Amino acid sequence: MLKATVYVTIKESVLDPQGNAVQGALHSMGFQEVGKVRIGKYLEVNLDTDDRAEAEERLKAMCEKLLANTVVEDYRFEIA
Amino acid sequence: MLKATVYVTIKESVLDPQGNAVQGALHSMGFQEVGKVRIGKYLEVNLDTDDRAEAEERLKAMCEKLLANTVVEDYRFEIA
Repeated sequence: MLKATVYVTIKESVLDPQGNAVQGALHSMGFQEVGKVRIGKYLEVNLDTDDRAEAEERLKAMCEKLLANTVVEDYRFEIA
Repeated sequence: MLKATVYVTIKESVLDPQGNAVQGALHSMGFQEVGKVRIGKYLEVNLDTDDRAEAEERLKAMCEKLLANTVVEDYRFEIA
């Protein structure tokens, strides 16, 4: 079994209203040093295979088809 | 300026319905090798300070007070 970690982040050029809201909330709580905040998703996926090359290819397909919206999001993954 | 990365994950003992939904969706798309899926949050936070020790302490406070619900979530962070 392989363990994969997938990071899905909003592209740099796309606004992140959730991140802005968190930044505002942190400011109003006294964390004035907080600059830009960007929020993404973090997924831990267990894969029932031991073939790393195949896992990589399959994960890429999962990201493209379901996990990330590649119009506005970037993704990257690591296989542990 | 320091760049911090915060990971907020659901505690192991807590159900993750979002992860289960994604697992189901991946199965129905033909990714039968997918086992458990757990979904968390990934935050990139810019901090307007150069004091790493202070940044660490402040980040801990941000996580405890706003970014994570410590009843059901764990957090960890890295300062780059």
